[in-house]
Amino acid sequence: MKNTFGNNLTMTIFGESHGPCIGITLDGLPSGFPVDQKAILEDMKKRKAAGKISTQRHEDDIPQIVSGLFQGKTTGTPLTILISNQDQHSKDYESLKGRLRPGHADYTAYKRYNGYQDYRGGGHFSGRLTACMVAGGSICKQILAARGVKIGSHLEQCGTILDKPFSSDKEQCAREIDQMNQKAFAVLDPHKEDAMKQEILLAQQEGDSIGGILETVVLNYPAGIGDPIFDSLEGLLSHGLYAIPAVKAVSFGEGFGFARLKGSQANDAFICDRTIQTRTNHNAGINGGISNGMPILIHTCIKPTPSIYKTQDSVDYLTKENVQLKIEGRHDPCILHRARIVVDCMCAFVLLDAWMSKAGLEAFMEDPYAC
Amino acid sequence: MKNTFGNNLTMTIFGESHGPCIGITLDGLPSGFPVDQKAILEDMKKRKAAGKISTQRHEDDIPQIVSGLFQGKTTGTPLTILISNQDQHSKDYESLKGRLRPGHADYTAYKRYNGYQDYRGGGHFSGRLTACMVAGGSICKQILAARGVKIGSHLEQCGTILDKPFSSDKEQCAREIDQMNQKAFAVLDPHKEDAMKQEILLAQQEGDSIGGILETVVLNYPAGIGDPIFDSLEGLLSHGLYAIPAVKAVSFGEGFGFARLKGSQANDAFICDRTIQTRTNHNAGINGGISNGMPILIHTCIKPTPSIYKTQDSVDYLTKENVQLKIEGRHDPCILHRARIVVDCMCAFVLLDAWMSKAGLEAFMEDPYAC
Amino acid sequence: MKNTFGNNLTMTIFGESHGPCIGITLDGLPSGFPVDQKAILEDMKKRKAAGKISTQRHEDDIPQIVSGLFQGKTTGTPLTILISNQDQHSKDYESLKGRLRPGHADYTAYKRYNGYQDYRGGGHFSGRLTACMVAGGSICKQILAARGVKIGSHLEQCGTILDKPFSSDKEQCAREIDQMNQKAFAVLDPHKEDAMKQEILLAQQEGDSIGGILETVVLNYPAGIGDPIFDSLEGLLSHGLYAIPAVKAVSFGEGFGFARLKGSQANDAFICDRTIQTRTNHNAGINGGISNGMPILIHTCIKPTPSIYKTQDSVDYLTKENVQLKIEGRHDPCILHRARIVVDCMCAFVLLDAWMSKAGLEAFMEDPYAC
Amino acid sequence: MKNTFGNNLTMTIFGESHGPCIGITLDGLPSGFPVDQKAILEDMKKRKAAGKISTQRHEDDIPQIVSGLFQGKTTGTPLTILISNQDQHSKDYESLKGRLRPGHADYTAYKRYNGYQDYRGGGHFSGRLTACMVAGGSICKQILAARGVKIGSHLEQCGTILDKPFSSDKEQCAREIDQMNQKAFAVLDPHKEDAMKQEILLAQQEGDSIGGILETVVLNYPAGIGDPIFDSLEGLLSHGLYAIPAVKAVSFGEGFGFARLKGSQANDAFICDRTIQTRTNHNAGINGGISNGMPILIHTCIKPTPSIYKTQDSVDYLTKENVQLKIEGRHDPCILHRARIVVDCMCAFVLLDAWMSKAGLEAFMEDPYAC
Repeated sequence: MKNTFGNNLTMTIFGESHGPCIGITLDGLPSGFPVDQKAILEDMKKRKAAGKISTQRHEDDIPQIVSGLFQGKTTGTPLTILISNQDQHSKDYESLKGRLRPGHADYTAYKRYNGYQDYRGGGHFSGRLTACMVAGGSICKQILAARGVKIGSHLEQCGTILDKPFSSDKEQCAREIDQMNQKAFAVLDPHKEDAMKQEILLAQQEGDSIGGILETVVLNYPAGIGDPIFDSLEGLLSHGLYAIPAVKAVSFGEGFGFARLKGSQANDAFICDRTIQTRTNHNAGINGGISNGMPILIHTCIKPTPSIYKTQDSVDYLTKENVQLKIEGRHDPCILHRARIVVDCMCAFVLLDAWMSKAGLEAFMEDPYAC
Repeated sequence: MKNTFGNNLTMTIFGESHGPCIGITLDGLPSGFPVDQKAILEDMKKRKAAGKISTQRHEDDIPQIVSGLFQGKTTGTPLTILISNQDQHSKDYESLKGRLRPGHADYTAYKRYNGYQDYRGGGHFSGRLTACMVAGGSICKQILAARGVKIGSHLEQCGTILDKPFSSDKEQCAREIDQMNQKAFAVLDPHKEDAMKQEILLAQQEGDSIGGILETVVLNYPAGIGDPIFDSLEGLLSHGLYAIPAVKAVSFGEGFGFARLKGSQANDAFICDRTIQTRTNHNAGINGGISNGMPILIHTCIKPTPSIYKTQDSVDYLTKENVQLKIEGRHDPCILHRARIVVDCMCAFVLLDAWMSKAGLEAFMEDPYAC
Repeated sequence: MKNTFGNNLTMTIFGESHGPCIGITLDGLPSGFPVDQKAILEDMKKRKAAGKISTQRHEDDIPQIVSGLFQGKTTGTPLTILISNQDQHSKDYESLKGRLRPGHADYTAYKRYNGYQDYRGGGHFSGRLTACMVAGGSICKQILAARGVKIGSHLEQCGTILDKPFSSDKEQCAREIDQMNQKAFAVLDPHKEDAMKQEILLAQQEGDSIGGILETVVLNYPAGIGDPIFDSLEGLLSHGLYAIPAVKAVSFGEGFGFARLKGSQANDAFICDRTIQTRTNHNAGINGGISNGMPILIHTCIKPTPSIYKTQDSVDYLTKENVQLKIEGRHDPCILHRARIVVDCMCAFVLLDAWMSKAGLEAFMEDPYAC
Repeated sequence: MKNTFGNNLTMTIFGESHGPCIGITLDGLPSGFPVDQKAILEDMKKRKAAGKISTQRHEDDIPQIVSGLFQGKTTGTPLTILISNQDQHSKDYESLKGRLRPGHADYTAYKRYNGYQDYRGGGHFSGRLTACMVAGGSICKQILAARGVKIGSHLEQCGTILDKPFSSDKEQCAREIDQMNQKAFAVLDPHKEDAMKQEILLAQQEGDSIGGILETVVLNYPAGIGDPIFDSLEGLLSHGLYAIPAVKAVSFGEGFGFARLKGSQANDAFICDRTIQTRTNHNAGINGGISNGMPILIHTCIKPTPSIYKTQDSVDYLTKENVQLKIEGRHDPCILHRARIVVDCMCAFVLLDAWMSKAGLEAFMEDPYAC
């Protein structure tokens, strides 16, 4: 389905980095939900480049909802959001034409589209498209929040610097999520924030870039959502997360760490204390692809930004010659802190869709204003 | 889509561990392909329990193709394969009814299906369903092999024992794949095979289990297949792989290791030596979701089998009481070596579907026997 | 999606006329529904060939549910039904190989599959596949019936003989549906039944065949189901109905008759008498693709069976020669009376899927046997 | 999938009649196709209201392609077209709020969306949305035309006036298609054009409206496209056509006329004269859901416009009272002549998608501009 994703709720994403605008269509939303447009703007701001640690391409990124919203509430028909492109420097890319940027999709796009792709700024492959995911997913996050679901991420690892993990105490974790959602640079341990930023600046001075790992937690998601086999929450979440450029690894709970555990260590014992819970949560709130009511824990690795200022070996596909390439223009030395809200929003979309697939659209629809 | 997966080529999986049979329907196959049923049986054998290191539930697992095959060749209409269930001990599970096995989907299935699920042997959640993935994916593997694509996996890590990685030399790697595909227990370093088996037996003696990590490599897959955003090869492959019970982490190339690399280390420089290639392959043959012609490298973590003989804390959901649970019956102390062929077959399915989505069904159809 | 259809509830159909069996997988059923297998058999019987007015190929057509049913109730995981093929005369078709039967799919299958299709008895194109639609749709009909929805069809036109239409009085119509569902040959006006049967027998004596039109009515389907644009009830129903071989026209309410009406005649005025209803029902209970609570009225045209005993002009695609063709074997002089239950079952499937898409799976799930 | 349709090629439609804009996203287009924007404008013009026989709402309807087009050619990534709404008279609808217009979707939208729909001008149910289908389908028509496929429709019946049918001679039919595509009011028999227009004007003077039937023909579509069961060309075409508001009947070839034919009359005998063809074409170029290379013939009934100036009985759903309703504002006395191009464009979309599903994207991609 290429640019459309979801079962009952779908998102369709379109646009290129240097075209007039990019956009997203959400189809299947419940009707009557009062969309908080300020909250969308706040999420957009978290994705925005800011300060020295980000690219100097600055855009307002004010999402314009052109359909599906009437008198401030969702209508239930497709909600389309447009975001204009403003601060393109298309000329920066003219000189690159034909010269393949390592780590980017220039070569694969050329093979996939026979050379007809819009190569300016990565075109449809640009990280800029994630602005659409934020604008759309932010609405999903609001709908989930209205039902008590909290979603948040922090920079668990940025370059070589490690943050402390989310607390396993649910109430403390809830407070941490709230904290992270207030911050532009989402780190739990305040001492690590400066260290991470310094590592980013250092990479920038070297004309290089760094990546890292995001830890995402979802609280209060009900038990019994998801399916075995292909609609497992893990399958759906990872499918959505890999749509974010630069993601190269996704895991749940102990993730690859399961390899060194024994069954007796990896299993989460059940206890009944009013409700059925598990004592530990190695399996990240998901068994057999279905939520068990415990926190959902996701790790997502964002590779270092491929755009660097160092000279790199490359090929010009127009001349078939080996060349030396130095990418000019404006890039991020690190996109991890900006990717955090994209991950939150994509998770919100997937989890809302899965929930609606079971509970139905009606369960999410507002009571009619007239019988 | 729950039990149906794929774009142009789809697989639909059905059945329960203790029902009369399980099965798979492949829809969208090219017509005229001569299916090698012996090769399917060999793949089924790799998934089969064998020796002391596996469960004592033994079944012939002879796939019966009931449609879509005529005079030994695919017709192009749905190809359905049935596999009968033979060696069920359904009584083993009667005593468990209501008692939640930690690490299993008992609780989530109960919440998802209101208690109406077939709880015997995990029902539709059973690892037994992976026999369908092998039977179907094995045909996809044959179609890819006829076009020169090689797929193979080895046990990169089993418990605490590490194997050496696949060679980065393409010809050596091709030989290693062939070797692995001859072996029941796929390990590259012969010294590690015994160590791994001993660790499995030791876990078994302790009434415990272990897991591990599979490294999968795909050679000769053409460049230009896949799509940005939602039909990225990473998104599609991970979605398919998470359909395999016990998978909790999937990554590509350096995977989570990208977090400690700089952009200059993570980027794969291009070189042109007749064809355009990359000097390194950190990105696992995939840029922007699309293949670049280099080997595709996947890591999949299989958690330790949740069925163990140790007494575990649990809850009886019928009585809501906290209970002590000891699982009787026959289980695998490790399923990693059996999961290997499941991963190969699922990857083959996804990669064939993606290729057909671009090149079209016709490109894969055999010439007509009559004009 | 070729052989899979539906949004939240899907059906996947497989098999060939002369293979070991045909089958259907229903995915997305609510769990806990007590399936009445006798009722399925009764529906299967309505589709079965019987008496002189049908083919002499007789098969028991006992559907075997091999998954998704546990202790008589749906589990919520895929429910697969197999139906064995018993009374094939494959030799009848050997002589036909290469010779294109007019009105059949022999030529198009040859072009579509390059000649690799199973040509015996129409293979996957056979009307026999409709047995799967009945077996699966019959369960959907039961689930709808448990919520008060009634579905029935009658032979509005068979050859040149016209039946009277369903009553526009809802209670009378309900009685008529019950009557039709008791009958093997569903005609409202008893005088017309014999006339129709005679016309069928006459066609048979001439080595010819006839077709006709089915009128289908659905009562008590709730208002507010369906969607504008692509998930309109008309779009979904017609898509499903055209999957039945021999259907060449589908219309709703006045259908093509709308062409001669004025807006003032075609509009259905609203009246409020406790509930909002329409005074007339020209639009067949559907406005803007969405149900309005009035009866849904569908007309489906079944073309005359293409298998006839008369000599026909044809081509042998193996030799490229013009030939004279006389089809031997056993055929139906009319399939209209057998198609009636197929149409009912397909409509039930589509309408259940659309309802579940709005109300959600949970609304259809039985209360748990244990909390 | 609600507002997204198609298999390999998809269209997603969004927007409301009185919002800032409406739009369509085409995903899965081949790359490198030179889009003729003038030709799109010409098709848009055919849909536009013009003269006395149409509504006085006039809009420029200039489609703005905001993505997926680079240097005049398709990139292969999503192509989104926006069309602004300009001449809304939203106040005309304020007075109608709560009062259900007979024949419209006001009541069903209210039930479907709990009253939160944008009720102005029909909102997302408006015929205005068909402008998106034209803009998108026009590109599909161009791609088909580049491969020799011709599509055209005429007003076979407008009110009580009948046009002559398309010629069964292929060359003559091709000329007729070209003629129709030059005309604003597509009628084959020039004597009937005035009669039809007079009937429209007469209906208008009475404050009433009329409908009619379109005959659509597709020439040179290759044999072997489509699938049995659910991807039959009939199923896909009718699904797409029912997305057009006001369509209530769709048929193929003889359509409901098959009911009065015998098998010997309905079957199309094969003849081989260099290529395999059929002597007659009762089955409209489709057997078993698959094209046979003969002209595809479709009939689509457009009901009379529900907006009329006559006083109608209705209900106010806010007060639950029976009311008398007189719709003010600007409406079409007939939309048949405007719907013609919408039908052509929707057919082009479906037929291109089906063709690409078999032949593959690559078969439609332009040669690369660089190696």
